[in-house]
Order: sequence, then structure tokens, then C-alpha cells
Amino acid sequence: MQFTSEQRLDDGVLEREFTLGEVPGILWTPASGPAPLILIGHPGGLRTMYPRLVARARQCAADGFAAATIELPGSGDRPRSAAAEQARADLRRALEAGEPVRDDIVDRLVLPLVDKAVPEWQAALDALLALPGITGPVGYSGGVISIGIRLAVVEPRIRAALLFAGSFVPRAMFEEARRVTIPLHVLLQWDDEGNDRQAALDLFDAFGSREKTLNANMGGHTGVPAAAGDAAARFFNRHLS
Amino acid sequence: MQFTSEQRLDDGVLEREFTLGEVPGILWTPASGPAPLILIGHPGGLRTMYPRLVARARQCAADGFAAATIELPGSGDRPRSAAAEQARADLRRALEAGEPVRDDIVDRLVLPLVDKAVPEWQAALDALLALPGITGPVGYSGGVISIGIRLAVVEPRIRAALLFAGSFVPRAMFEEARRVTIPLHVLLQWDDEGNDRQAALDLFDAFGSREKTLNANMGGHTGVPAAAGDAAARFFNRHLS
Repeated sequence: MQFTSEQRLDDGVLEREFTLGEVPGILWTPASGPAPLILIGHPGGLRTMYPRLVARARQCAADGFAAATIELPGSGDRPRSAAAEQARADLRRALEAGEPVRDDIVDRLVLPLVDKAVPEWQAALDALLALPGITGPVGYSGGVISIGIRLAVVEPRIRAALLFAGSFVPRAMFEEARRVTIPLHVLLQWDDEGNDRQAALDLFDAFGSREKTLNANMGGHTGVPAAAGDAAARFFNRHLS
Repeated sequence: MQFTSEQRLDDGVLEREFTLGEVPGILWTPASGPAPLILIGHPGGLRTMYPRLVARARQCAADGFAAATIELPGSGDRPRSAAAEQARADLRRALEAGEPVRDDIVDRLVLPLVDKAVPEWQAALDALLALPGITGPVGYSGGVISIGIRLAVVEPRIRAALLFAGSFVPRAMFEEARRVTIPLHVLLQWDDEGNDRQAALDLFDAFGSREKTLNANMGGHTGVPAAAGDAAARFFNRHLS
């Protein structure tokens, strides 16, 4: 892990960009000293997502957590995969035509991404937890829900996960969801038109966790109300502090 | 409204039993002075429900709210209705036989109860808001969800409602639910076997409120986790304080 830039934000949070092999990432650490870590997921594209990512990281820091994220395979400045680009084009075509999105499109889009991304997040975790000032336990927050599911299954250092329901989920991930046992807090935007609500409810039902909460709200795709954000923050405070 | 008994609880909350005409009730006021009011709903039977009611009232008082409840028609020491008793027997028979509960049974059980109970809660509200130490705004919390729906539609002094999904809801109440516009916080026990989860989700979808939250958790019928209780308390703090 190599740090490539460093700046102190106005609230005292230290923001450092890094690379881990070919993967760029960002680490935010609170001024308050050693902290548990929250991995901040996203749909890909660190530069585009930066305003929302840094807002979430500041919230984490205010609650006493470090936060980190890495770029997804095929997003931002990382090399594209021809197969993923093809799947993305097929998805766009289906959505524009108002057709149902076939399972094979979702599989081609999401499964290779999960297979490639999850070991990268685990490698990032190795490097991050070796830094002074970052302690466990670790939480995972948001982003592509299938990456969150796989991480929750395979990575025992992750003790709690906040998931955003709504993105396309391959059938195979429902089986993995049954093997998740860590506490989950699932946010669902009830009136998100681009969202398969029934699939989100089925997925919530599938999770094997004894402690899971579905928090469904109005406000459209990006309109998660402040109170839901607060509830998510309290979820991590309960499980990681 | 006539007070029939009065005691100071160990946390300083003043508990007063009262009667309003033939209807008995209980009022809890915090030691801290004038307070907004939360009406505490229940399935009927003040005496049986007392331990849970006083726990909820103490929570209200700790958050700076007065709390009050009244007995439901046909419950506790109030006269039984032959029609309601018949409907209850029909319901029990259907459940014991593992049969689907017919709409007419639910209608006969719930609709007359709503028609009779709601004006009583409104009369209680008139009397309670005339007392020194009780100010608006008013919230409604829990109990028979159809009573909460009707109150939310017809009683403008109620500004926010916490509803427990799960009890049987007549078809006609879904139409009333569309006319609800106040902020709602709906608790659903996801793994409650005696609960028609799909009906609860349909009802949540039907509510006309622009601000509504579904908070679904594990833990069975009576196992609402502490964090969900806290979230409900914060809901009232946001809307009634």
C-alpha cells in the first residue's frame, strides 16, 4: 500500500489516497486516534462518487470510525473488461426497451465483478489493518449489494454490514445470502421506480442472519431520509464500538 | 373525566387511573412538566396489558411525553358484544383448523371495533388535552392497527403514528390507509409466524403518507429488538417535540 496524497479536511479528518497494486483507494481517519474501520462500498467510479463518499466518511469519522474505499474492477481509471462492457450494454438495451432484464445479463454483469472485487477488498483490509491507528472490528457499508453479500460470507473480520437493496442481484447470490450470519441493516427506498422491490424483499428474507433489520423509506433512489442515515450510523455504533 | 386513583412511580412518573363515562383509562405524566401526548394503543385488556403499557409509558415519559390509554370496547371489564364474540370464535376456529381466515370474519371482528373505539379515543383526547400539563401535538402508538389507521385519517390533532403491522386488517381499511398523510413509522416482526407478512407489506405500500418508514426485524411476535424501540422513540421525538 502506497500513499499518494494526503490532506487534512476542515473537520480534522485525515484523507489519504493510496494505491494497492493497480487498485486506487482512499482512507479517512478521524483526528481522535485509533479507530474501528468501515469499508465504504459504491457502484464504481471513485472520482464521480467522491462527494457522496467523503460525506459518508466524515459521518463515520464523527462517530469515531476510520473509513476506506477502493475502486472497483472496470471502473474509474481501471481497465475495462470487454465481457462486463457487453453485459452493461445488454442491460441498458433491455431497460431502454422496457424489457425484463434476463438472468444471464445480471449474471454476466455482477458475478465476475464480485469474483474479482472481493479478493481486492480483502487485500485492502490486510493492508489497512496493518496501519497504526486502525483497529478492528470492521464494518461494510453499501455499494453493490452482491459484493457486500460475498464479503459477509467469506471475510470473518467483517462483523456487521449495512446494505442498500435495489441493485440487480444474481440468483446465485440468494443462496449465498442464506449463509450470511452477521448482523445486517438493509436500507430500501420503497418508491425507487428503478428498483425490483419484490426481489429486495426476497433477498432480505433469504439472509441467514439472526439479527437483520429492513429499513424501508420513501424519497426515491437517492432520497434516503436523514433519519435512516442516523439509524444506519447507530447500527454500526452498536456493533463495532 | 374522573380520576379514580393516583400513584407516583419510582421514576417520578405520575400514574392516574380515570374513567370517561363507562370507559376506564390510565394517564401517565412525566415529572418534568407540560408535555406533548402519546396515545398508547393495545389489543384490549388494560389489566393484562398493564406491564407492557407501563413500560411504554415510562419510555414516553423519559423522552418528555405524557402517555395515555383507554380500554377497548368489549375488553377488560367492559360489556362484551355478542357479534364480536361470535367473530372471535369464528376466527379461533379458522386458525385452529389451519384454514384461511375469511374476509367476513375479519370485517365482523374489526370494523365494529374501529367504529366504536375511535370516537372514544377522540373523546379521551378532548378530555386529556383540557388537563393542565398536557399540550399537543399528539402521537398514536401501536395497538390494533385499524384503529390507528382510522384515527390517523379522522383526527387532525394526531400528527404522527407508530403502527405495529401484523394484526388482521379488513379490506376496507386499505382504502382508508390511502387517505393517511401523517408521518408513519411501521414496525413489522418479519419472522412472526402468526402474521400475514404480505398483507403487512401491502398495507405499508397503501399508506398515502409522503413520509413513512417500515422497520422490519427478527425476534418473533413479541421480540421487537431494543434498537427498534429506540428508533420508534426517536420517530416521536422528531415529530412531536
